Amino acid sequence: MIEQRHEDGSLRHLITLEGLRREEVEQLLQRSQRYVCAPGARPVRSQALRGIQIANLFTEPSTRTRVSFELAGRRLGAEVVNLEVQLSSRAKGESMLDTIYTLQALHFDVFVIRDAEPGVLAHVAGHVSPQVSVLSAGEAHLSHPTQGLLDALTVRQHKGHIEALRIAIVGDLRHSRVARSAYHVFRLLEAHEIRLIAPPALMPEPDEFAGCLRFTTLEEGLEEVDVVMMLRIQKERFSAAALPDGAEYFQRYGLTPDRLARAHPEAIVMHPQPMNRGVEIASEVADGPQSVIRSQVSNGVAVRMAVLETVAARLTA
Amino acid sequence: MIEQRHEDGSLRHLITLEGLRREEVEQLLQRSQRYVCAPGARPVRSQALRGIQIANLFTEPSTRTRVSFELAGRRLGAEVVNLEVQLSSRAKGESMLDTIYTLQALHFDVFVIRDAEPGVLAHVAGHVSPQVSVLSAGEAHLSHPTQGLLDALTVRQHKGHIEALRIAIVGDLRHSRVARSAYHVFRLLEAHEIRLIAPPALMPEPDEFAGCLRFTTLEEGLEEVDVVMMLRIQKERFSAAALPDGAEYFQRYGLTPDRLARAHPEAIVMHPQPMNRGVEIASEVADGPQSVIRSQVSNGVAVRMAVLETVAARLTA
Amino acid sequence: MIEQRHEDGSLRHLITLEGLRREEVEQLLQRSQRYVCAPGARPVRSQALRGIQIANLFTEPSTRTRVSFELAGRRLGAEVVNLEVQLSSRAKGESMLDTIYTLQALHFDVFVIRDAEPGVLAHVAGHVSPQVSVLSAGEAHLSHPTQGLLDALTVRQHKGHIEALRIAIVGDLRHSRVARSAYHVFRLLEAHEIRLIAPPALMPEPDEFAGCLRFTTLEEGLEEVDVVMMLRIQKERFSAAALPDGAEYFQRYGLTPDRLARAHPEAIVMHPQPMNRGVEIASEVADGPQSVIRSQVSNGVAVRMAVLETVAARLTA
Repeated sequence: MIEQRHEDGSLRHLITLEGLRREEVEQLLQRSQRYVCAPGARPVRSQALRGIQIANLFTEPSTRTRVSFELAGRRLGAEVVNLEVQLSSRAKGESMLDTIYTLQALHFDVFVIRDAEPGVLAHVAGHVSPQVSVLSAGEAHLSHPTQGLLDALTVRQHKGHIEALRIAIVGDLRHSRVARSAYHVFRLLEAHEIRLIAPPALMPEPDEFAGCLRFTTLEEGLEEVDVVMMLRIQKERFSAAALPDGAEYFQRYGLTPDRLARAHPEAIVMHPQPMNRGVEIASEVADGPQSVIRSQVSNGVAVRMAVLETVAARLTA
Repeated sequence: MIEQRHEDGSLRHLITLEGLRREEVEQLLQRSQRYVCAPGARPVRSQALRGIQIANLFTEPSTRTRVSFELAGRRLGAEVVNLEVQLSSRAKGESMLDTIYTLQALHFDVFVIRDAEPGVLAHVAGHVSPQVSVLSAGEAHLSHPTQGLLDALTVRQHKGHIEALRIAIVGDLRHSRVARSAYHVFRLLEAHEIRLIAPPALMPEPDEFAGCLRFTTLEEGLEEVDVVMMLRIQKERFSAAALPDGAEYFQRYGLTPDRLARAHPEAIVMHPQPMNRGVEIASEVADGPQSVIRSQVSNGVAVRMAVLETVAARLTA
Repeated sequence: MIEQRHEDGSLRHLITLEGLRREEVEQLLQRSQRYVCAPGARPVRSQALRGIQIANLFTEPSTRTRVSFELAGRRLGAEVVNLEVQLSSRAKGESMLDTIYTLQALHFDVFVIRDAEPGVLAHVAGHVSPQVSVLSAGEAHLSHPTQGLLDALTVRQHKGHIEALRIAIVGDLRHSRVARSAYHVFRLLEAHEIRLIAPPALMPEPDEFAGCLRFTTLEEGLEEVDVVMMLRIQKERFSAAALPDGAEYFQRYGLTPDRLARAHPEAIVMHPQPMNRGVEIASEVADGPQSVIRSQVSNGVAVRMAVLETVAARLTA
């Protein structure tokens, strides 16, 4: 496992939430909360990262997450540059490092990387100079740590302490980095119970998600839960899941008001977006009073500000 | 029709010039004039929109207009982010709104939208939060309000009061948002006469452009006019217009020095760009002493600064 | 040849290093050195170009050079906008100028242009307003002046005075703008000897690179040289060079530790990047103690800051 800390123990990279200590996550969440901004209010701005250069390297398209990191960096006074570079080709391991060394020679301080290939982020982090930080903006099906943090922040804002909560993660768990990072953070924060709800074909391997309860029907799995985290499903999974199309999927696994009624009456509904309305979630639920989906987005910028500040503020000192 | 004003009567959105009051347009033009910058002079810069976030959402390519809005926002100290998002798919009405809600949750204050589909802008404006403004950067064949304002500003700079003027709009009026916004603004400012000059097939429906005179030859239509507004013609229109190609079109409807001689000797020539030289306009005219085409571009930034300041400055107060 | 100076003799454009005086190059190098930043140190930032607008017009892809100019401009406080415009179509000479006039009307002060077509840069420079500067970021096979300057800066940092040096340029000289600009700058700085090493088919025409020694084997050409400048080779050249593929090319012309041993023991190795490791250069050499490749990248920003400041600082006065 990649070492994510400086020698003095402070956080340097954020590639996975695995291996973080509980107090580190707590500090990140507290710092994030300071950057949370109510709808319609002016976002907090500072010059904490003035002079810091952040490279956004997205080799998979993701307007939402890219812009979220871009705004986070800019609100802290950093210089953010979006780059279209190819990192992921294994065959060209050295040329990938040449790209990284070049960006380093251009004095970028932070690389924000989204990549479809497992291991690219750790490979980069293992080769950059001591003053450079690597942040994941999503890695294959493995990890999406800032999403995990924003999910935890959102749950805490709405439900208070995590320890008492039953949390259900629903959908294509097998291929979901969102689910894996949620699992890591909620486990670390000692959620009372984490449930996985998915068609058998989309359930993760038995050796993953240790300690979770597994359900293959929504009806059973949602019983009395406090948090319902829906996942996005890709069209190409329907056949794998032995479900012919989105309509059939919705029939079996879509979150409808009826199904949600089985959860705790004050349960919140989350979704990482973009949503497939009428496939994994009904519009009545997505737009309903229990949905906290929009505050997830807003929390995303706050969390990325906190993470950027944590890894980069030392450079400006 | 979409309500473009706040409850206190001040301008909130700018999606069309239809329905604006004359004094509102006059104020926008006066404010624009303050931002006009002579060639070679340093542009006016301010921090009036410091902390304001502007999202440039262009679903049709338009470097010119996009950059013009980007520079306008930046010169006022705002944060401008260019986004490649899909807004226009009708079938996905809700997913379009999800995108908008996401951007809102990221605390964007102004959406600048160019879209090929009629109604998208009004749909967005009808759903955004009270503090968010929607500005059109061109909507289908319907409306391009900042272009209309910059055209009016350009005419006023060169010809003084609009009331006394005969204005000819020439070319593919049927499909032109530039023509429609010019019509709205010059009508509001009570131009003496507005003439439409086009091949019959490119003439708008009879119930549009009320009160204008219609001509099917340039020779007649240009007689004694003070302003000649040329429109860009798309190649695919030639067959519709029963004209085989650009050369034939030029033969019949191209603005040549000879034809321009029929206009008032001090008439000005305008074009929204990009020009098809040798198709709708001869180079001698485009680059000649009566052309004010380049000052249109420069006025474009000034007008967009004025519009942005008008809708967004209240947010920083 | 294009006049690159203002009437008062100061530098206005930088399209080629040909025709520059030695003291002009010396001044640029001295100014560059002030912006050089050690690895891990904070880059120098200033507001020297505050209010200046720079348009990055890259019609050939080049993340490295584009970002280098972007960072250079931003570190000096300028506004940098990346534009995707088409400049290079000869057939559309006038429409290319319309684009330039439009950008000028938007008050851009500096155009940074990379273009595959010889002559586009001079054509643009010949038509812009007196206060506008045109900088080459690479033109066809002809010229890449800021690369030439950064190469000279790198050599000087590592080897001191250029006059005493034997410099070898190795590879696809025939098609290389990097080689041509290196030749110009090292000639001007009176390098003791410039050697060209290439397969016969990739050697430039006899009337080019006057005064250089030509070698067709690395073994002979590298004997006792102080500087080895490797060039990138494009795959499509192998057949032209009568070499079937990259492996064969490496066999004959790749820079290996053995071959490098023929050079002076303190010789430095350079490469403009991106490298084809295992084709024109062995990884042991690219990453070895004689390689200064990464300091070239870092020097690139410093040189571009110096050039931008030289041509644009007068505008803010």
